[in-house]
Amino acid sequence: MSWQLSKFGENLCGGSGIGELMDDLGEALAGGGEVKMLGGGQPAHVPEIDAVWRKRLEEIMAEPGGMEKVLGNYDVPAGNEAFRMALAKLFRKEFGWEVTHENFAVTMGGQTAFFFLFNALAGLFKDGSRKKVLLPLLPEYIGYANQSVGADFFEAIPAKIEKTGKHEFKYRVDFDAINPGDEIAAICVSRPTNPSGNVLTDGEIESLREIARKKGIPLIVDNAYGAPFPNVIFSEVTPVWDEGMILTLSLSKIGLPGTRTGIVVASKEVCRQVSSMTSIVGLANANLGQEILRPLVESGEVLRLSKEVVRPFYEDRSRRAREWFARELRDEVPYFIHRSEGALFLWLWFEGLPITTKELYQRLKKRGVLVVPSEYFFFGLPEDLDWKHTHECIRVSYTMDAETVEEGIKVIADEVNKLYREG
Amino acid sequence: MSWQLSKFGENLCGGSGIGELMDDLGEALAGGGEVKMLGGGQPAHVPEIDAVWRKRLEEIMAEPGGMEKVLGNYDVPAGNEAFRMALAKLFRKEFGWEVTHENFAVTMGGQTAFFFLFNALAGLFKDGSRKKVLLPLLPEYIGYANQSVGADFFEAIPAKIEKTGKHEFKYRVDFDAINPGDEIAAICVSRPTNPSGNVLTDGEIESLREIARKKGIPLIVDNAYGAPFPNVIFSEVTPVWDEGMILTLSLSKIGLPGTRTGIVVASKEVCRQVSSMTSIVGLANANLGQEILRPLVESGEVLRLSKEVVRPFYEDRSRRAREWFARELRDEVPYFIHRSEGALFLWLWFEGLPITTKELYQRLKKRGVLVVPSEYFFFGLPEDLDWKHTHECIRVSYTMDAETVEEGIKVIADEVNKLYREG
Repeated sequence: MSWQLSKFGENLCGGSGIGELMDDLGEALAGGGEVKMLGGGQPAHVPEIDAVWRKRLEEIMAEPGGMEKVLGNYDVPAGNEAFRMALAKLFRKEFGWEVTHENFAVTMGGQTAFFFLFNALAGLFKDGSRKKVLLPLLPEYIGYANQSVGADFFEAIPAKIEKTGKHEFKYRVDFDAINPGDEIAAICVSRPTNPSGNVLTDGEIESLREIARKKGIPLIVDNAYGAPFPNVIFSEVTPVWDEGMILTLSLSKIGLPGTRTGIVVASKEVCRQVSSMTSIVGLANANLGQEILRPLVESGEVLRLSKEVVRPFYEDRSRRAREWFARELRDEVPYFIHRSEGALFLWLWFEGLPITTKELYQRLKKRGVLVVPSEYFFFGLPEDLDWKHTHECIRVSYTMDAETVEEGIKVIADEVNKLYREG
Repeated sequence: MSWQLSKFGENLCGGSGIGELMDDLGEALAGGGEVKMLGGGQPAHVPEIDAVWRKRLEEIMAEPGGMEKVLGNYDVPAGNEAFRMALAKLFRKEFGWEVTHENFAVTMGGQTAFFFLFNALAGLFKDGSRKKVLLPLLPEYIGYANQSVGADFFEAIPAKIEKTGKHEFKYRVDFDAINPGDEIAAICVSRPTNPSGNVLTDGEIESLREIARKKGIPLIVDNAYGAPFPNVIFSEVTPVWDEGMILTLSLSKIGLPGTRTGIVVASKEVCRQVSSMTSIVGLANANLGQEILRPLVESGEVLRLSKEVVRPFYEDRSRRAREWFARELRDEVPYFIHRSEGALFLWLWFEGLPITTKELYQRLKKRGVLVVPSEYFFFGLPEDLDWKHTHECIRVSYTMDAETVEEGIKVIADEVNKLYREG
């Protein structure tokens, strides 16, 4: 029995890069370690952080009516009010932003926030016109690619590549290429960038804000890995926000992906709109993640955990992963690792790779190692653009236990070394 | 700062009946009982059921790695495999359906399943045509009304009203009026029906299946209150399913609304499509509800709880609520309560009410009692249809503590008695 699908159905029902990645990830985790999962965005289980969650659950169960409320009550669609008030207080204190709880809206994870925001701002308009979302630095997050309920709505600018060392490079925004027309409804960047671990400089962000301000469109910043939590950001940059921006955060990368909790920081009007979408699409949000984190936000403890536990944990992981690649890849291989400025993965560029990274992915999968090939992160480009770089990179997560990552890197390096010998 | 919205944004961002209802509900629950909340779909806190949840949480925390997995791991977008295997086993055993875990897909609550299914099957098609969802018995669930990402996509058939007692009535499907054209993509009913507590007879369901089968379109049955769990169904009817149907269930009404867990039972192809939509819109589902219920599904205990605890609890609540209305409403008032066959609320029809129930809602709200006026449950009708019944009903939940419900009913009856005296 097979039924005809609408455009919405055609776009969303037929699988996607993010769907395959999440299937790979979930199966690998359920499989108990036979597969070396260097593909998905699964955060690490940091023992000190897991201990905090355990303590919070014990507190919720000890509080009279606490557990019953979390499991058994619907909350308002905008998200728990006490949680949002705690967030507002934290952001006022930490960054000096003039925000109240009405500048915060909770969603079922950060991914859902983007589904809402992109489709509400871009796509088909009542007058028949179509608008797009400008991605000023491609490669961008795989999870955006298939989110349109109608025609494709991304217009992307290829990053400028700057080689910064024998085996290191960094993406830069190509501002000369950015000149948004009236068909652009919003500008969106992830910071730190998924997949490259790039962190846009304060100057780049300021220039993007200025461009958005002049056009009267929002600058959306996906802050899933950023400050103040989980703070998986290894360089010193300044978080900024004003009513011309929409910032998203997530509880996933600090260690609560199973609770599906995202946060939108925006004007009160946008937050009301997000809340309206939440009620229509899903009635309300899951309560648990908000309730686990709430007192840690109120006390500021979440800042200490992010700065003193989470960031150093991943910074160390990043350093070791780069060391293992340097040890395992032959120095003659023209590989370049994107300067690791944040997030949970390395982004490797193999210049002149004889095969596509989709093929490399298949070879590695056969040897029990999962990575994400670069093709998925390049979308919204002109169809006639022939850019070899889009087939020459892989994303490698370093969040699994160190032994798994090291073994996985050995296999990757072995395949790549062979390819350049053969090639 | 206000940005132009797409059609999607115009439809979903501007508030809705379900949005107001969820705001009312969340605020009333957070407010701690000053408001008599007889409006929303909040399930009762049944002590024996809450005790089961507590025990399950204790077990999850005691199991090595149990808590860490639930909070900290992404699962596959289709939903936890062990949970879906347990469901398949239960449904095979209980109903004899030929299903495997691949016939089940988990969503972020039942509401989200409908957002996915309606928009994937109906709305705008690639060839420019538009398709609709047929609601064969209106009034229908308020939460469907605003779910289209494009033009409205409901075509509804007004229920036939059968007075079955001096103060009781029952809706019947008007089969003479059902003749779906090629623009109909699916037929959808809730069973028990939200808002009326009506349960479509086995014969009515069989006829609808036959109509759907002949047209080659799915019959979607919203089973949020039905069998085998939560089983808030007071009449003896037979759950049916085959590959021509899509059935949805929810963990909300058995007492876990805060976990946002819905279940779709459908062909393997449809389940793959739902899983694809989950990954694109939200990456994965929240884990907690599935993990709480899983062993209770595996052991069959969920059936016992539903039959021996949940159903009798609400059946008793329904009986008492009807007794209170009979005691408080003057016998001369031409009121009719829909025969209470299931779900968590009574549906009252005040024939010839001098004001609309939207106005009645406002009067009651001023007196601290929240109900849901009937206007929200009538949608998808021809614009020129003048049907007084759409302004003459209210939905009254009986899930709050008995004293609150009784006091609320006194206020409702007092207002209504006055209206007929004045009128």
